[in-house]
Amino acid sequence: MADAPEGTLPVPPTTAAQLTAAEKYQLVTQNLAEVLGGDQLKAILDERDLIAYWGTAPTGRPHLGYFVPLAKLADFLTASVEVKVLLADVHAFLDNLKAPIELVEARVDYYRRLITAVFRSLNLPLDKVKFVVGSSYQYTANYNLDKYKLTSITSEHDARKAGAEVVKQVSSPLLSGLLYPLLQALDEEYLGVDFQFGGVDQRKIFTYAEQYLPKIGYTKRSHLMNLMVPGLSGGKMSSSDPNSKIDFLDPPAVVKSKIQKAVCAPGEVEGNGVLAFIRHVVVPLGELFRGQGRASVRAWVGEGAPADAVFTVEGNPKFGGETHHFRSVDELEDAYAQNAVHPGDLKSACIAAINALLAPIQAEFNGSAEFQEAERRAYPPEVKPAAKKKEKKYTPKPEHLMTPEEKARQAEKDAAFAAKKQPKQGGLNETEQLREAVVDTLSQ
Amino acid sequence: MADAPEGTLPVPPTTAAQLTAAEKYQLVTQNLAEVLGGDQLKAILDERDLIAYWGTAPTGRPHLGYFVPLAKLADFLTASVEVKVLLADVHAFLDNLKAPIELVEARVDYYRRLITAVFRSLNLPLDKVKFVVGSSYQYTANYNLDKYKLTSITSEHDARKAGAEVVKQVSSPLLSGLLYPLLQALDEEYLGVDFQFGGVDQRKIFTYAEQYLPKIGYTKRSHLMNLMVPGLSGGKMSSSDPNSKIDFLDPPAVVKSKIQKAVCAPGEVEGNGVLAFIRHVVVPLGELFRGQGRASVRAWVGEGAPADAVFTVEGNPKFGGETHHFRSVDELEDAYAQNAVHPGDLKSACIAAINALLAPIQAEFNGSAEFQEAERRAYPPEVKPAAKKKEKKYTPKPEHLMTPEEKARQAEKDAAFAAKKQPKQGGLNETEQLREAVVDTLSQ
Repeated sequence: MADAPEGTLPVPPTTAAQLTAAEKYQLVTQNLAEVLGGDQLKAILDERDLIAYWGTAPTGRPHLGYFVPLAKLADFLTASVEVKVLLADVHAFLDNLKAPIELVEARVDYYRRLITAVFRSLNLPLDKVKFVVGSSYQYTANYNLDKYKLTSITSEHDARKAGAEVVKQVSSPLLSGLLYPLLQALDEEYLGVDFQFGGVDQRKIFTYAEQYLPKIGYTKRSHLMNLMVPGLSGGKMSSSDPNSKIDFLDPPAVVKSKIQKAVCAPGEVEGNGVLAFIRHVVVPLGELFRGQGRASVRAWVGEGAPADAVFTVEGNPKFGGETHHFRSVDELEDAYAQNAVHPGDLKSACIAAINALLAPIQAEFNGSAEFQEAERRAYPPEVKPAAKKKEKKYTPKPEHLMTPEEKARQAEKDAAFAAKKQPKQGGLNETEQLREAVVDTLSQ
Repeated sequence: MADAPEGTLPVPPTTAAQLTAAEKYQLVTQNLAEVLGGDQLKAILDERDLIAYWGTAPTGRPHLGYFVPLAKLADFLTASVEVKVLLADVHAFLDNLKAPIELVEARVDYYRRLITAVFRSLNLPLDKVKFVVGSSYQYTANYNLDKYKLTSITSEHDARKAGAEVVKQVSSPLLSGLLYPLLQALDEEYLGVDFQFGGVDQRKIFTYAEQYLPKIGYTKRSHLMNLMVPGLSGGKMSSSDPNSKIDFLDPPAVVKSKIQKAVCAPGEVEGNGVLAFIRHVVVPLGELFRGQGRASVRAWVGEGAPADAVFTVEGNPKFGGETHHFRSVDELEDAYAQNAVHPGDLKSACIAAINALLAPIQAEFNGSAEFQEAERRAYPPEVKPAAKKKEKKYTPKPEHLMTPEEKARQAEKDAAFAAKKQPKQGGLNETEQLREAVVDTLSQ
């Protein structure tokens, strides 16, 4: 397939219309950890296209880890699946008040804009993406009634078990956390979907839904789960470790700095966040681009690579390194395991790939005053407390003398310091604001 | 005060307008087990009249035990308190599905008619009574949001503790039961009341409300608790023992039969349901009537009694018994403890009192086709299963030869038999009916 001319984005994917039901099923279920209820999906695909649900609670800033599910959603969209993205403001609230109440609405807005920008950067058909805000239906009488219905057949034990891997575990569990799985089950019915997609950490919530929706007269949905991908510094990417988290708006120098600090032991594939990101995001998106006839957009495939190459690592000429083109991630990992690929070179290739993926998203952000305003409202700059600081014993390097990396590091330090000093917000006196926010949302 | 002429009911109580704040407070808090937040009520009474909340879940048939709180509500109404009666259909549903879903709406209607008839029989001002159906506001966005708010600060442990004495305890607690105390707390805010009234079995729910409402920015309410009154066969009157339960519609002969079977050991005052009923219902209502200038309505005060008598026991002439007029329940109980009052005579007096209290209510029921239809809808006659019965070995007594008591007993046996044979209704496929019922209610 010849490359589409550059600069024509967005264009509809050229493949979707020609896919058979079997090919669509293959696309929808590829690269997953587990599929529950695949036969049900096959049967539907014989009749019509699928409808999916993927939920995200608009709490902290969306980070690069979101590319993992979003890359999978790209498969769905390419297979003509209608993707319902639940911006789960109520869930955010239920999970131990992770999102400050007065910011929830602003964060819903920012998440929607950001996810849209990501899909646009991937040249995906946005008409198949439906954003739904949880509070738009989770406060209705019918939903409430169904929730009561589920509470009347769900024991505390089973609710706790279902939420164990998703809801923040505290010594004395809160009722809110116990309700969480019930809401997520009902969402499948109220969003009218054929399947829900999430990480394997959602498995117990998914099986809860499979077991309990039929008990209140609703259809059992299928469940598709992707692997948990390790973060760039090992562990879960959503952790509060700022070095593990690359923000969608991090400039290239910050991305470079963070990746250079990432855990990437020579020869170790297991738990290697850099390799995992290449496997689950970079290469699948490269395949997406190739399917869209835009193979040359792949900044991570070097010049002169063979037509079926998916990733290129250039050796540092300082050390006489040579350039490797890989035809699959397995090939890349094998080479890495045999120390044929240097971690520094792998990181450089990954930095280039990430920056290439982020560039169009950041371009959209930088070109939109509304997007910038949405970001500012969702994550207002931390106000440094007026508390006395220790007298500094040294003269800091003037800002104009700092490298971009040093500036970024200093900004992170400042932010971490401010976050530590910020008094804890209990959120207990903020009901009114959330109520107003919700009523606003409902009356739109 | 001279008696008002008979046959002029309903008339407004003649006393309320002349009561001082202190007298109103005295009336509102008299004969209670406990008052929490009395000072707050006193402060309000200096400004305006009080607003109260008493809730009842419309599940089984209302029985004579309801006279205990209703007699106390009569005090409130006499003290110009606005009484909000919550017909708690959602609570009924949450407490282990005690009310079959498709009957909840019909039972709400029957409870409202019956309680109204009771108040009318007591000559109380109905304009101060407001019936509120729980589902009319418990499915709204604001309520739901506040409920989520409470779930996010209430641990499973505290919710379980709060509901321990009220919610049916099962081996693995259901989430519905855990939510119950939260709803009851929120009701105080949403009903806009100054205090909630209930039995001392509600104490933990009341203290939960006192503790948690302020945490979400709402006023802490006062709580008034009456004693738990033993049932007529000992134990709680709401038990499923049919002999313990006298229905508001039981005809005089059935009342007589049930009271004659009541536990009423000679000389024993403690746990004596007959004495308890006289103390908590008959005598207080007699005082109410006297305050209304209708002392002669008191069928339980014999002819020739002194003006300050509150109860009369006539000795059976067969045994040469004499007639005692008592000036207080303490006097009656002392006499009973000293075996100066025969249990049979006490029962006869109590039977007469109950039938006198029930007569106007039953007259209203018998005179209203709507009331009868409401009862029929709320408690449809059990359909006997078509299952094979054992061949009877004897010829039963023909119905026309039975005494009224025998007929009543036979009817009870039949009902108990039918109830046993009735297949258990899980209520799991009935969401649609309840949803429709609720939506109907909401759209009225």
